[in-house]
Amino acid sequence: MNGRIISASRAPVRQSSVRAHNLALVLQTVANSANRPSRAAISSATGLTRATVSALVDDLIAGGLLTEVDPTPRTGAGRPAAGLALAPDGPAGLGLEINVDYQAACVVDLSGAVRHRIVEHADQRPLSPGAALAELSTLAERARAAAEADGLVLAGAALAVPGLVAPGGLVRVAPNLGWQDVDVPALLPALADLPITVDNEANLAALGELRADGAGPSFVYVSGEIGIGAGIVLDGALYRGGRGWSGEIGHVTVHPDGRPCRCGANGCLEQYAGQEAVAADPDLAAAALGIALAAVVNLLDLEVIVLGGGYAPKFDRLREGIEAELRRRVLTAGLAPVTLRPATLGADAAMRGAADAVIRGVQEDPAAWLTRAQAV
Amino acid sequence: MNGRIISASRAPVRQSSVRAHNLALVLQTVANSANRPSRAAISSATGLTRATVSALVDDLIAGGLLTEVDPTPRTGAGRPAAGLALAPDGPAGLGLEINVDYQAACVVDLSGAVRHRIVEHADQRPLSPGAALAELSTLAERARAAAEADGLVLAGAALAVPGLVAPGGLVRVAPNLGWQDVDVPALLPALADLPITVDNEANLAALGELRADGAGPSFVYVSGEIGIGAGIVLDGALYRGGRGWSGEIGHVTVHPDGRPCRCGANGCLEQYAGQEAVAADPDLAAAALGIALAAVVNLLDLEVIVLGGGYAPKFDRLREGIEAELRRRVLTAGLAPVTLRPATLGADAAMRGAADAVIRGVQEDPAAWLTRAQAV
Repeated sequence: MNGRIISASRAPVRQSSVRAHNLALVLQTVANSANRPSRAAISSATGLTRATVSALVDDLIAGGLLTEVDPTPRTGAGRPAAGLALAPDGPAGLGLEINVDYQAACVVDLSGAVRHRIVEHADQRPLSPGAALAELSTLAERARAAAEADGLVLAGAALAVPGLVAPGGLVRVAPNLGWQDVDVPALLPALADLPITVDNEANLAALGELRADGAGPSFVYVSGEIGIGAGIVLDGALYRGGRGWSGEIGHVTVHPDGRPCRCGANGCLEQYAGQEAVAADPDLAAAALGIALAAVVNLLDLEVIVLGGGYAPKFDRLREGIEAELRRRVLTAGLAPVTLRPATLGADAAMRGAADAVIRGVQEDPAAWLTRAQAV
Repeated sequence: MNGRIISASRAPVRQSSVRAHNLALVLQTVANSANRPSRAAISSATGLTRATVSALVDDLIAGGLLTEVDPTPRTGAGRPAAGLALAPDGPAGLGLEINVDYQAACVVDLSGAVRHRIVEHADQRPLSPGAALAELSTLAERARAAAEADGLVLAGAALAVPGLVAPGGLVRVAPNLGWQDVDVPALLPALADLPITVDNEANLAALGELRADGAGPSFVYVSGEIGIGAGIVLDGALYRGGRGWSGEIGHVTVHPDGRPCRCGANGCLEQYAGQEAVAADPDLAAAALGIALAAVVNLLDLEVIVLGGGYAPKFDRLREGIEAELRRRVLTAGLAPVTLRPATLGADAAMRGAADAVIRGVQEDPAAWLTRAQAV
């Protein structure tokens, strides 16, 4: 057998991608380390040679991704080597959100720390998509200015919307905003110099929750606002579905001949457990949520359900009603428990998830960032 | 950068696993090839050197996995090189099924051809688990004898059951068989010399359908017998869930205050679209199936639904009623179509999927088979 480089995906890896792979390997080793590892510790954790690690670390420092810090104190003798940490003044992610009754922006640095956060409450429904996105531009520019004042460079932006998003950032439908076929990037010219992605708010909130690391490798995140969406995380990764439109739990039928929904069907969960329905009759809302969530668990065999958005502050009020239906309707309820818990990030989950998605993109492909940083 | 071997999973690959990886790479290259590739063609398809390919091919031929055959005719000059094909007389998979009103066994060779098939119709409900499995042993021994008479060697067995299976082949619950905590391998001593796995019938049927290759990389397979189960295939792989208990669509609620179910809940799909309900009122059954399948599509954004088991022969009768509910209740129905179609393997899907799972195991890890074949 010769020494060819082979990937687990059954295809040879090209030499040109090995550096990119190893840059990501080194950066993620630092990111996932509880302490501040030295070059030698990285070499030992990755199996790469000391010389290879040093060259990669130098590139990552030059590109503003890593920084040398005082090492973790140790008990052994000898002068300790310099430790490495994610740079707090390198690339940052801009997280944005438009929901039915607020807009929000936050800046998250490479280490995951929230550096700036702006939330403005206002009903978005009277606004045209263009007007709403013009306001969002202003918010984004304020956040960007604050980031730059800290010495941060935005690596990209991600926007959370309560709707179905197609590739390229086209919002096909956002029923509760009244949007249809809105080309978001075209309406955000102020951000044209940044890579921008648009995603469903529940998907991004689920990613935020995954990053916040309390929900286990598989869970469903349910976001209860005026509409209801879900983000499904399977084995540590967001499950998006064939066209990116998974998680529409708000339109799961709970009463086949029940209340008419804006979508045209009858008896959708959204009509029984949306924000107004929860305020009007929390017991009925909890029962309806339990019926729909039992379907999710029966189909996907998930062990954890996270209630986010407007459900998080009402968790204690809703819990018992939901759990009663889960006990009754989940086939395996007697064999294994289902854990129901409130979201740890509360109402910020979607914009935090958006900013984290930008940061994760840099961590997963630092070579692309280094190339872009050189070009700027 | 040195020439280290690196996997895409961000960890170095050990040299000892490289041979196993490359054996699988060569075997799968032959399996996925439309013609009978030569050693040179395999070298060019895999990027492995000619010498490496030849050594691996020799090992696979010696282990009964590949065979040399006449090459695909070609138009160029020169004597064509010998072609390679999967051996039709090497390892084979034994697929078994126990369902409520039949038992079945089949033998599938490495190339996927069904070599033997036995189905015996009899109500299993009056039998104890031990008695049912004793009958299955007899069936399995007949299939094994027929395989051995053909020169085949069974590489393993897989059994499909309509229930929830825990690791080690323990059937926790098979409600419609009346089984609870049945240790299947312990009750099949006649097969003790074979690796045996036990799995949910809808899961195995979905795998069979995936192998039969008409359903696209993501789909839900719904098996309609006396009970109803589903197998969920995402991106070409069976999605099993946290404990292997995914796909319990039979217990998705369609009428919250409806008919009582054996599981203790009310209004489960099984009560409206099980075999007897379909016979009694196919329109109500189709509507109930449509409600539950709309939930699946809203949650998972799948583009293909496959109706199998007892639904396949009744597909034309059920289709319109199901599609009417999908059009009404799937949020994205107006944006993208959902394809509903009958299973291509019909009633054999689960046992075919079981045998295919054994064969796939050999194709994915031929090194393990070679080690075992040497030991026999």
